[in-house]
Amino acid sequence: MNAPLPLTDTQLREVQALDAAHFLHPFTDHQALARRGARLITHAHGVHIWDARGQRIIDAMSGLWCVNVGYGRQALADAAYRQMMTLPYYNAFFQTTTEPAVRLAARLCELAPPVGGRAFTHVFFTSSGSEANDTNVRLVRRYWDLMGQPQRKIIISRRNAYHGSTVAAASLSGMAAMHAQGDLPIPGIVHIEQPHYWALRHEGETPADFGRRAARWLEDKILELGPERVAAFIGEPVQGAGGVIIPPETYWPEIQRIVERYGILFISDEVICAFGRLGHWFAYERFGTQPDLVTFAKGVTSGYVPLGGVLVNERIARVLIERGGEFNHGYTYSGHPVACAVALANLDILEAEALPQRVRDDTGPYLARRFAELTDHPLVGVAESCGFVAGLMLVRDKATLQPWPEAWEVGMICRAHCFDSGVVMRAVGDRMIIAPPLVMTRADIDAMIACIRTALDKTWAEVQQKAAAMHSK
Amino acid sequence: MNAPLPLTDTQLREVQALDAAHFLHPFTDHQALARRGARLITHAHGVHIWDARGQRIIDAMSGLWCVNVGYGRQALADAAYRQMMTLPYYNAFFQTTTEPAVRLAARLCELAPPVGGRAFTHVFFTSSGSEANDTNVRLVRRYWDLMGQPQRKIIISRRNAYHGSTVAAASLSGMAAMHAQGDLPIPGIVHIEQPHYWALRHEGETPADFGRRAARWLEDKILELGPERVAAFIGEPVQGAGGVIIPPETYWPEIQRIVERYGILFISDEVICAFGRLGHWFAYERFGTQPDLVTFAKGVTSGYVPLGGVLVNERIARVLIERGGEFNHGYTYSGHPVACAVALANLDILEAEALPQRVRDDTGPYLARRFAELTDHPLVGVAESCGFVAGLMLVRDKATLQPWPEAWEVGMICRAHCFDSGVVMRAVGDRMIIAPPLVMTRADIDAMIACIRTALDKTWAEVQQKAAAMHSK
Repeated sequence: MNAPLPLTDTQLREVQALDAAHFLHPFTDHQALARRGARLITHAHGVHIWDARGQRIIDAMSGLWCVNVGYGRQALADAAYRQMMTLPYYNAFFQTTTEPAVRLAARLCELAPPVGGRAFTHVFFTSSGSEANDTNVRLVRRYWDLMGQPQRKIIISRRNAYHGSTVAAASLSGMAAMHAQGDLPIPGIVHIEQPHYWALRHEGETPADFGRRAARWLEDKILELGPERVAAFIGEPVQGAGGVIIPPETYWPEIQRIVERYGILFISDEVICAFGRLGHWFAYERFGTQPDLVTFAKGVTSGYVPLGGVLVNERIARVLIERGGEFNHGYTYSGHPVACAVALANLDILEAEALPQRVRDDTGPYLARRFAELTDHPLVGVAESCGFVAGLMLVRDKATLQPWPEAWEVGMICRAHCFDSGVVMRAVGDRMIIAPPLVMTRADIDAMIACIRTALDKTWAEVQQKAAAMHSK
Repeated sequence: MNAPLPLTDTQLREVQALDAAHFLHPFTDHQALARRGARLITHAHGVHIWDARGQRIIDAMSGLWCVNVGYGRQALADAAYRQMMTLPYYNAFFQTTTEPAVRLAARLCELAPPVGGRAFTHVFFTSSGSEANDTNVRLVRRYWDLMGQPQRKIIISRRNAYHGSTVAAASLSGMAAMHAQGDLPIPGIVHIEQPHYWALRHEGETPADFGRRAARWLEDKILELGPERVAAFIGEPVQGAGGVIIPPETYWPEIQRIVERYGILFISDEVICAFGRLGHWFAYERFGTQPDLVTFAKGVTSGYVPLGGVLVNERIARVLIERGGEFNHGYTYSGHPVACAVALANLDILEAEALPQRVRDDTGPYLARRFAELTDHPLVGVAESCGFVAGLMLVRDKATLQPWPEAWEVGMICRAHCFDSGVVMRAVGDRMIIAPPLVMTRADIDAMIACIRTALDKTWAEVQQKAAAMHSK
């Protein structure tokens, strides 16, 4: 491990000052950031990151849902080095190709089991999940044009979905805060409600009943729009950035029935959920759906190099290739040889260490058990997981799941206590979420749960104090 | 150099079969590709690439306008390796930061000279030029919302511009073939004509007069739309993918006058033109414009790792930060530490070897002279260059610049002869274009020109034969 020495206060302040002066962070209030100063992450190994003060922190978010094989993997650094010294870049525009891109495309098609009798035969590469979902918008419309149904333009997505941050990907996303800036969504994208049992259940409704009802919002919307106008439905198997919203088991089979019934394309956005995250290579295996297109990114390289793409099944690929002529779309870095070489080495690790299976059969169930124990904490209303994603709902009243006042930002308070307690959790409103590296052992899980418990205690103490102060006013 | 052995025919056919079976290339007719089989590029060094048959080819396109420092640079491979072993990824979402992103942001702001008394103070990172221009769409609209002018939504671009391939970036682009697929452009983006002297000049009009007239198309459009509705103008200093369209010297000063007069933002898309390509760190230095936002990608890492971004000047940054709260936009890989570390090492090389200055003072003028000599060839109507981009116009009649019939695809014929003659040139219609690595020496330029001449001779022979065959029918 390359472990730099902790920085002195002066050195750290210099970096923080440069950060504030020059670096526009994603999704960040920069005045708030400047007030506290950015936390500088200096190095990492396995499931741990270190900050500039020398604090070791369990990275329960895998960077940002991506470092599936953990940090410090020499095989990935070697693969990048080797490829850079051999051929650091070449394009695939000039009827030219490179071996890493070809091998990775073939490997991904081999790893993805056929569904509904159709194989995934082709891959379109991008550098991110955003670019990949953006590609899907053009690709499904192109498909229907070539099928002689140009009126099929509308893509149905879900509220609180996250499909990326380009104009089109943010339009597919169902985030109100994103749509409030920059005139989103673009035309032709509509949203239905998410399958969020805790937010949208009727009194006394079982999860199974809710799942079926939530799926039928898709059917209602298709009928409202006219089935002949609908091009595709897109969904994350488990909504990630929306707060780890795990749908009831009845949801996806009903969605599958509906997309088949109306003959619309089904895009499974597995940027977060593929490559072992839910205990399978691809998340559609977990839920038994039959997508036509599968978006991937993050875990394909464990985040070591930017890479994303779309797996395309044979019926779509055949139409694009045989009827399409040139699909006028692509990126300079579509099939980047270094990114693809690193991805191949990363898949080797996932395979050699059987990480998807380990999550499915061993560490996933163990995490589920240990995580569920957190429901005994006074702050926790619900604790649930699916493979290696999990979410806690912080509540004011456990019996009624009454939330804390939004202005208190209890989630952000908890996130800060998590960092200070030695674990990274993400806050989405008052949902505290994790997506640990798949290499996490049972012992690591125990250590992580202990840190989370400490952070919850500190958060509880702070909000109790706050409540008491409010009360005494 | 890692130089693999040439492949046997059987090995090559195996890779080509996998390529055809699984890899969707960007901007490619896959039936045509499958018929000839993809050319497999195996390794590269300096200004040369090698294919699987062992043929050495001068890469006059720098991959795809990106390998500015040439292939085989150990310092870049070392930087990637070191960063991967230290911290291969961390996000900048959780009030966290990493040193490569901070240092690169600061370095870019230092390299970019202030214009109009305003410094470039901030950088927003992406993984590509497409993502960066897509960011610009949301960013300029956000800016005007915060300025209390929410009616300023329209972005004016130019026909035959290329700004990327996401839905929004392809909308900014002015490519008819892209707009014909997938319902582009999105609302709020309009196009004026490009400053293409050879295509649009009046009889007897000087380049200087044409340049001023072409710039005023922007003013006409602003007045037609209403200045209060226009958010920004975007342009490439030299149109790259459009065929290396070099505007007359009078064009940009007049554009600058117009954007100032109407107070609209000016985005200089320097994805191709920055980092020495035009003999300066940034292309706005070459043309004396004063952009508010500068898009970059490609040359910032010489393509070794995907990276892009936007340089933001202080007036925009201040509004976003001081009035904006959270700008709800960003990518997982915004500020990717490996990409930023490689970029820093790449800038070190550009600086240590003074490559921008070398292009400006020595190899650029030499290329201009040698390239211009090609006008003596019977196929060549016009040969022009600017720094290290250059374009040839292939014509049927040199005096009148009469073009070849489009269906003959003379450009594609020439591209194939170029590859076979040992040089990569790109064909855009019948314009043959180059953008060589900045490390190219005078001797390399001589070798390149000799290969181009051979390819032109072969192309000439083929089209003469074709014309004779047509004639005898």
